[in-house]
Amino acid sequence: MISIEEALSKILEEVSKAESESVALRESLGRTLSKDIYADRDYPPFHRSTMDGYAIKSADYDSSKIYHCKKEIFAGMESNLDPGEEIVKIMTGAPVPEGLDAVIKIEDSQELSLENSISKVKLNSDKIFHFMNVAVRGEDLKKGEFVLGSGTKIGMPEISLLACLGVDLVSVNSLPTVSIVSTGNEVVPVGSTPLPFQIRDSNSYSLIAILNRYNIQPKSIVLVPDEETKITEALDKGLESDILLLSGGVSMGSMDLIPPILEKLGVKKIFHKVSLKPGKPIWFGKKGKTVVFGLPGNPFSVQVCARIFLDPYIRSYLGMEISKPQRYSFYGKRKKKNSLPEYFPVFLETKEKTGISAKSFNGSGDIRAGLFSDGIALHPAEQGEVLEGDVLDYYPW
Amino acid sequence: MISIEEALSKILEEVSKAESESVALRESLGRTLSKDIYADRDYPPFHRSTMDGYAIKSADYDSSKIYHCKKEIFAGMESNLDPGEEIVKIMTGAPVPEGLDAVIKIEDSQELSLENSISKVKLNSDKIFHFMNVAVRGEDLKKGEFVLGSGTKIGMPEISLLACLGVDLVSVNSLPTVSIVSTGNEVVPVGSTPLPFQIRDSNSYSLIAILNRYNIQPKSIVLVPDEETKITEALDKGLESDILLLSGGVSMGSMDLIPPILEKLGVKKIFHKVSLKPGKPIWFGKKGKTVVFGLPGNPFSVQVCARIFLDPYIRSYLGMEISKPQRYSFYGKRKKKNSLPEYFPVFLETKEKTGISAKSFNGSGDIRAGLFSDGIALHPAEQGEVLEGDVLDYYPW
Repeated sequence: MISIEEALSKILEEVSKAESESVALRESLGRTLSKDIYADRDYPPFHRSTMDGYAIKSADYDSSKIYHCKKEIFAGMESNLDPGEEIVKIMTGAPVPEGLDAVIKIEDSQELSLENSISKVKLNSDKIFHFMNVAVRGEDLKKGEFVLGSGTKIGMPEISLLACLGVDLVSVNSLPTVSIVSTGNEVVPVGSTPLPFQIRDSNSYSLIAILNRYNIQPKSIVLVPDEETKITEALDKGLESDILLLSGGVSMGSMDLIPPILEKLGVKKIFHKVSLKPGKPIWFGKKGKTVVFGLPGNPFSVQVCARIFLDPYIRSYLGMEISKPQRYSFYGKRKKKNSLPEYFPVFLETKEKTGISAKSFNGSGDIRAGLFSDGIALHPAEQGEVLEGDVLDYYPW
Repeated sequence: MISIEEALSKILEEVSKAESESVALRESLGRTLSKDIYADRDYPPFHRSTMDGYAIKSADYDSSKIYHCKKEIFAGMESNLDPGEEIVKIMTGAPVPEGLDAVIKIEDSQELSLENSISKVKLNSDKIFHFMNVAVRGEDLKKGEFVLGSGTKIGMPEISLLACLGVDLVSVNSLPTVSIVSTGNEVVPVGSTPLPFQIRDSNSYSLIAILNRYNIQPKSIVLVPDEETKITEALDKGLESDILLLSGGVSMGSMDLIPPILEKLGVKKIFHKVSLKPGKPIWFGKKGKTVVFGLPGNPFSVQVCARIFLDPYIRSYLGMEISKPQRYSFYGKRKKKNSLPEYFPVFLETKEKTGISAKSFNGSGDIRAGLFSDGIALHPAEQGEVLEGDVLDYYPW
């Protein structure tokens, strides 16, 4: 039985690289860039006033002088000085005309008169300097500057920036195709009424939820009974996808049947069983470019395994960095009986500071185990008891 | 000028309640329940073995006895004892037959012989008790028990549970319709090449991203120049939605034009300007069931206002609780010059513990301000400087 770290490193060794495709900017949320992005021009693209006021030449500023102002410049307007023009009235967001370099805000001005469209103004700022109240051309970004790297996940600030840069078609990593096969004679579809000794297929939905975080819609979701021909058929079809996820019953039938069938179908076992709880029986293998995750059948086990093993595979496939666990103080106490590292469901809880507290549950078969939880925390193998204030690794769902 | 808290409470007073609709379970991720959910039966629905082993009657356990075992029960099988039958071999997930109440795991058994399908077995467990290695019928949930309340957002653990309970059609709150209108002569669409003194419309994309978290696709996104008739037309159309979001240029034109046009269209102003940075000029009003958020034009300002004011409105509309800020220790130092409460972009940073660190930027007009950030933190109004270790309110994006 290998450790979590060994299992993870074996999984990441098998990552196939995604293809690239173009999507409309609006469809790009949650996707990852497949190419680096560079600035198309300087940002700001011009010296931009950050205040409503008067643009002047800072070197010529004189608080005793009466200035003649003939022009008002709004955002979106081109601005040039006429010969002899010393100041212009300027609005926030407007370009500062060439020849001027500072903006004195409107509150520090006094309009003495307005005649023939010429306003006489006194300016009285307690300070003046080059580029005062001006966002300088190129101060945020220089034309050609590297902005976003391949593998960046596109969230709110990123999509907004891509829009600024005019990237209306985005090169993103293609999503992997995924098939889900649930097995087990005791498992029936969600829409049906189970007999007393049957349960409904909920694991497919946990997997749909994990995939959904990356905009992945599974290509197929099938439920097969523990019959060799039916399982063979389903797995053979599932191996056409980039990722084949097996989940389902914990019936002995499934556990006996599936590994030999996978082998017959040419899937190479990379590992079986990992030293963790829950999810110890996890199976991982590969055929061609297709990886196969054999996930245990209990609802909470499948969620933990998906979060700890499948999620990093997908991130890596999509060129993203593998997110390290966060670290939080634990509120409460928690004992464990075994010597395995153990993941348990937690809430983020905010007292004076944000920490994590354990959600109680009846074991990995408890259908409410993960309910309302924000993620899972790791109870370290060697620690029989976790105490108030201990700092633990935390994995948001 | 009102405070953030006052503004928020005025916004929440105006919340219209969502209608209800049914969606397929698979489409329900990210939606919120519009009805409470109760258990359709006991969970587990039967006494379920949590081990591979032998089911016995705990009261009759005798380690010196040789038991006769005729039957093996798998998950998904109905299980009854024949007259005189004392034990059965049982697999994880299988129902424990009536009359038996404990499972001794396979490792604690010894099969002595197998003849005519009858196996002779010795059992040697160091302990025995009622319901040992058995998940008891109804221990997770009792039939009819309240499970999930209206307003619950459906994430991974929730969709998995709904699947267990057989909820294949989910009653969820209908999403609000949203229109986005960007204004400003200086703003051009993403797909076009701006003149030197123009910028592209990025704010619509920030808003799309915030809405996307709730599965909301805006009904319309339009960009209009600062012309009264065009703005009037766009706002009039936008007022047909449940939420009208105005964003765009910071040009004086827009700021002058929009409030009177809204008034003419019958929109009642509820507040204008809030004591915060960035986003002070925010405008909020209502007409009939439609609320109108007039958001400032700078990229980071619109992101902050959307997170602090729009997000709680949407949550409340969908029946969800308003999430309180998390609280994290600050890594670093940060000064501010003004006396306003100030939101700034931060990274979650994990050292010994997870805290937050500031992302540096050139002001709210910096198109990179929020880039890669995990959320925003609040620099309190009265605190000129935030120091290493200070605990701050944190709002994930």
